[in-house]
Amino acid sequence: MKILTTIDEVRVASSDISKAGKTIGLIPTMGYLHEGHLSLFDNANEHSDITFASIFVNPTQFGPNEDYNKYPRDIDRDTELAEEHNVDYLFIPDALEMYPIGFCATMYIRNLTDKFEGQLRPGHFDGVALVVCKLFNIIRPDYAFFGQKDYQQTLVVKQMVKDLNMDTKIIVSPTIRLDSGLAMSSRNTYLSDEEKENATVLYYAMERAKDAIDNGERNRKEINAVLHKQLRSVQGIRIDYASIALANDLSEPDYFYPNEQAVILLAVYIGKTRLIDNFLITFQ
Amino acid sequence: MKILTTIDEVRVASSDISKAGKTIGLIPTMGYLHEGHLSLFDNANEHSDITFASIFVNPTQFGPNEDYNKYPRDIDRDTELAEEHNVDYLFIPDALEMYPIGFCATMYIRNLTDKFEGQLRPGHFDGVALVVCKLFNIIRPDYAFFGQKDYQQTLVVKQMVKDLNMDTKIIVSPTIRLDSGLAMSSRNTYLSDEEKENATVLYYAMERAKDAIDNGERNRKEINAVLHKQLRSVQGIRIDYASIALANDLSEPDYFYPNEQAVILLAVYIGKTRLIDNFLITFQ
Repeated sequence: MKILTTIDEVRVASSDISKAGKTIGLIPTMGYLHEGHLSLFDNANEHSDITFASIFVNPTQFGPNEDYNKYPRDIDRDTELAEEHNVDYLFIPDALEMYPIGFCATMYIRNLTDKFEGQLRPGHFDGVALVVCKLFNIIRPDYAFFGQKDYQQTLVVKQMVKDLNMDTKIIVSPTIRLDSGLAMSSRNTYLSDEEKENATVLYYAMERAKDAIDNGERNRKEINAVLHKQLRSVQGIRIDYASIALANDLSEPDYFYPNEQAVILLAVYIGKTRLIDNFLITFQ
Repeated sequence: MKILTTIDEVRVASSDISKAGKTIGLIPTMGYLHEGHLSLFDNANEHSDITFASIFVNPTQFGPNEDYNKYPRDIDRDTELAEEHNVDYLFIPDALEMYPIGFCATMYIRNLTDKFEGQLRPGHFDGVALVVCKLFNIIRPDYAFFGQKDYQQTLVVKQMVKDLNMDTKIIVSPTIRLDSGLAMSSRNTYLSDEEKENATVLYYAMERAKDAIDNGERNRKEINAVLHKQLRSVQGIRIDYASIALANDLSEPDYFYPNEQAVILLAVYIGKTRLIDNFLITFQ
């Protein structure tokens, strides 16, 4: 595995790979790798000739009161894991390499970003779209792999790629979970053992909502009520949102119709840690 | 010359050209071609193997009270001129091909766009950056050619290319003028003969400012006073701005120092027609 830290090095590598007629699969990450990322590496190895991963804790996607500085980092361990999972090139730029002095560009994806995560984390998806756009232009991947865990992010990235006529195919892989149902996340490291136990309520609540839907419930407010009731069974939980929406544009109709694909979206605080999760459902 | 109207056609053509190891030069235009555009075509023919031009009156760069609908169009004449000037591919998409229903992306280049044209035409440069980004991603040019006439635009495009790590080199060609000094512009077609005569005051005013600078003037306000005084010699003229600024970032110091490159920027109404012009000066 080659470790690259400058944009110029990446351009040379990417250009050589393309000239050799080989395809590039990219997994953009913020590091502190877990099973979710590793499954994306494996997925990229299957889909493409060369697997590129990036580790960059992107400052532009953190709000002023968010955890940019304390976001967990462990480059040595990440490097080992990437190598074990057959990553060919690991791009680890520093912040000034990506955002030099005098940087001026911002990007904004309307509509999709003004609700759920976007509403609660203003500017978050602007930063995500910006850094993904930059990484795609630098690495020029044929495929890029994202986890379903950040569901709204996958919609934003797909919309950006479409609207800006970028030439990278976005592939979304299922969320990887512990046996308890807890979705893998770098932020799980913030949780105490008790909080980890409490955090299983996210998956449990989505399963109960799915039961209700399987039993014929199609009223959005009723489904959301099931989610809120289950989540509130954990003392001290704080719910940012717990809602079902249409999967393609996150709009929220009063009723769902047969064959509509929907997504349950959760964001809750367990202690001081904010966790998100989601679940795709096709109405029968 | 091949005329292409869909993005898919362009992608195929561009990919074939690249595979053949040939370079692409792009001239993005809004059509109603004049000598200025034609000089860019000639320039592209010299620099690159294949010359691509686009004609697209881009709705996102017009404000709600601007001249999008009445912007002059003459596709037949443009097509002839492009062919005469050895354009190889002419891309003429319609608005829905570039901005399909559900389009969400916006782009914003801070600092550079909050003064002069950007301040007076809010959103204008956002639309320019967006459409240029799209055209670059669709056509994948090695070089793109812009006229110095839209000086601030060239800075915005260069900044976008740098910040988004795009792989196209921007080449700026000198403004083409009538013998009278009037800069070539599609909007000149709005001018009556008398207004065309009055419009020569733009170039004249910049020459007088240059005289003052050649005679040792380095005080910004004094230089601006020369510009305003000359422009006001035309009755009924309305000045949006007439200022000298640093050429690289359009900042406005009180004094200019030796070896600093500056730009005189003008935007004035002659009758109902808004004209812009500029002039680069290196202080001695």
